[in-house]
Amino acid sequence: MNYTIGIDLGGTNVVAGLVDENYQLLDKAAVKTRAEMGFDYITDNMAKLTATLLERAGLKKEQISSIGIGSPGAMDRSTGTLIFAGNLDWHNVPLGPAVEEKTGIRTLIGNDADCAALGEFVAGAGAEDESMALITIGTGVGSGIVTGGHLFSPAGSCAPELGHVSLISGGEPCTCGRRGCAEAYLSFTALIRDANRAADADGESMLARLRAQGEALNGKNIFDCAKQGDPAAKALVDRFIELMGEFFGSIENAFGVRVIVIGGGISKEGDWFCRRVREAMIPNVFAGELYAPALRMAKLGNDAGVIGAAALERYL
Amino acid sequence: MNYTIGIDLGGTNVVAGLVDENYQLLDKAAVKTRAEMGFDYITDNMAKLTATLLERAGLKKEQISSIGIGSPGAMDRSTGTLIFAGNLDWHNVPLGPAVEEKTGIRTLIGNDADCAALGEFVAGAGAEDESMALITIGTGVGSGIVTGGHLFSPAGSCAPELGHVSLISGGEPCTCGRRGCAEAYLSFTALIRDANRAADADGESMLARLRAQGEALNGKNIFDCAKQGDPAAKALVDRFIELMGEFFGSIENAFGVRVIVIGGGISKEGDWFCRRVREAMIPNVFAGELYAPALRMAKLGNDAGVIGAAALERYL
Repeated sequence: MNYTIGIDLGGTNVVAGLVDENYQLLDKAAVKTRAEMGFDYITDNMAKLTATLLERAGLKKEQISSIGIGSPGAMDRSTGTLIFAGNLDWHNVPLGPAVEEKTGIRTLIGNDADCAALGEFVAGAGAEDESMALITIGTGVGSGIVTGGHLFSPAGSCAPELGHVSLISGGEPCTCGRRGCAEAYLSFTALIRDANRAADADGESMLARLRAQGEALNGKNIFDCAKQGDPAAKALVDRFIELMGEFFGSIENAFGVRVIVIGGGISKEGDWFCRRVREAMIPNVFAGELYAPALRMAKLGNDAGVIGAAALERYL
Repeated sequence: MNYTIGIDLGGTNVVAGLVDENYQLLDKAAVKTRAEMGFDYITDNMAKLTATLLERAGLKKEQISSIGIGSPGAMDRSTGTLIFAGNLDWHNVPLGPAVEEKTGIRTLIGNDADCAALGEFVAGAGAEDESMALITIGTGVGSGIVTGGHLFSPAGSCAPELGHVSLISGGEPCTCGRRGCAEAYLSFTALIRDANRAADADGESMLARLRAQGEALNGKNIFDCAKQGDPAAKALVDRFIELMGEFFGSIENAFGVRVIVIGGGISKEGDWFCRRVREAMIPNVFAGELYAPALRMAKLGNDAGVIGAAALERYL
């Protein structure tokens, strides 16, 4: 049996997992990231987490074919260099080589969103499909794609950043500095912005009443208001689904994936949401129903990033 | 020396070319398509064109490693079946196997827009780059992508159909049935639509005066009016360039290519156009200037499709 280790380098925690060759996550270990402690501290911790996992499983480092690290930011995968990672304030650090030196195990790096997509592809909602896009709906809109037997992660770019594809040119301002990106309409941040506007416009709406009771609007209570029939919330959610269908149609027309997996906070909404987004998507797919991809909710939650990082060696 | 033959199956002509292993086009032969004559007639002609090229070059069929056919429509490349091609009224025809049987030479098929992109990649404006998108601006907006050493042409899809990615959700109607696709703003058809509207709105504009003289507006005279300082035409062309920059930014954010090549009728406009579109594109690239692709005009014209078809064997 051959094992790999996946490490998810997050802003809050560094999580490492031991994965077998069937992409089963056998064990996990985590420590706080503590970005302020710097590069050596964090890469030391990655080596310690690796040692912990090996010890608990009774494995030797020779039985681990590689470590994969999923990191935020832009990177040069061929050298293992992290070019920049805003949250960590790292610039041109040799992330792969440092962990390889500290562990004695071959180390690969990949983008965290790419790793999440790869995790769902090998062991989650996309398993056994030919190609897959993961679109995570949360504070922003993240994306990762597996196609043609590989992670789609072209060198010398941040692509795929599908949240920063135009949806309504000249529209709402986006965090990236553009206007009208998909993220400016399809993130929870955007939904909450629109719900607050709707509450401002209609003081009788359930949304306005919730807010008057001191409750901040969030994805969950906006969806709940819509389900309870509040017209303002329903109009918002209908529009959100309509635009998501259109966005997914564009993704299909560009990438031709067989399944789109929806991840992030919204994945709790479940099947009704997938069904409605798919209905809205079909008229937006160039070849119509013939090539319309399946839509599914993500299955692995936060484990996707760890499992996908562990799978990097086979999908780069 | 190893040779391949590329065949471009167009609505008007079937063009075949003999290509050497450096992707030089050594000879070409063509016949009228005559779609109404049907599948056997056209595939017979493909075999005859192949025989003509071999005879003129003094080559035997054993010296041809493959024939590649660039065809419109949707196809299953693994079996060589053309699933549908609207213009030809063909449905589920064994295009690859038929030509292979009639010539005794291994035959591959590919989408015509993909082949044009591949031609520019191996022998034209994208040669020696790592990855490339070809965007053709004409009656419609066509696209093809080469990335990771392969033509990006996922099975079971029409992708990449970048002309049918949303640019302004809910905007102008598109030929595909959606609203607001890139093609509904960035084709010559769209530019002419907008120029006619501008001429309607301002009878004093150069555009209106041209039309009053009985001249139909087209890409060339609209650009010429703008260059001569007509305010209405200038506003149109400025907006066209602005939106194209935004669209190319979205393409970069999605696909991370190192160069975008502009083909079709607009490629005659030359360097000033590339420069201005690139200026408009840079603020729309997620990582900014660092990862902004080069922009160039296509070099090969109609030969791109033939050369790209001949290159299919190495890029599928």
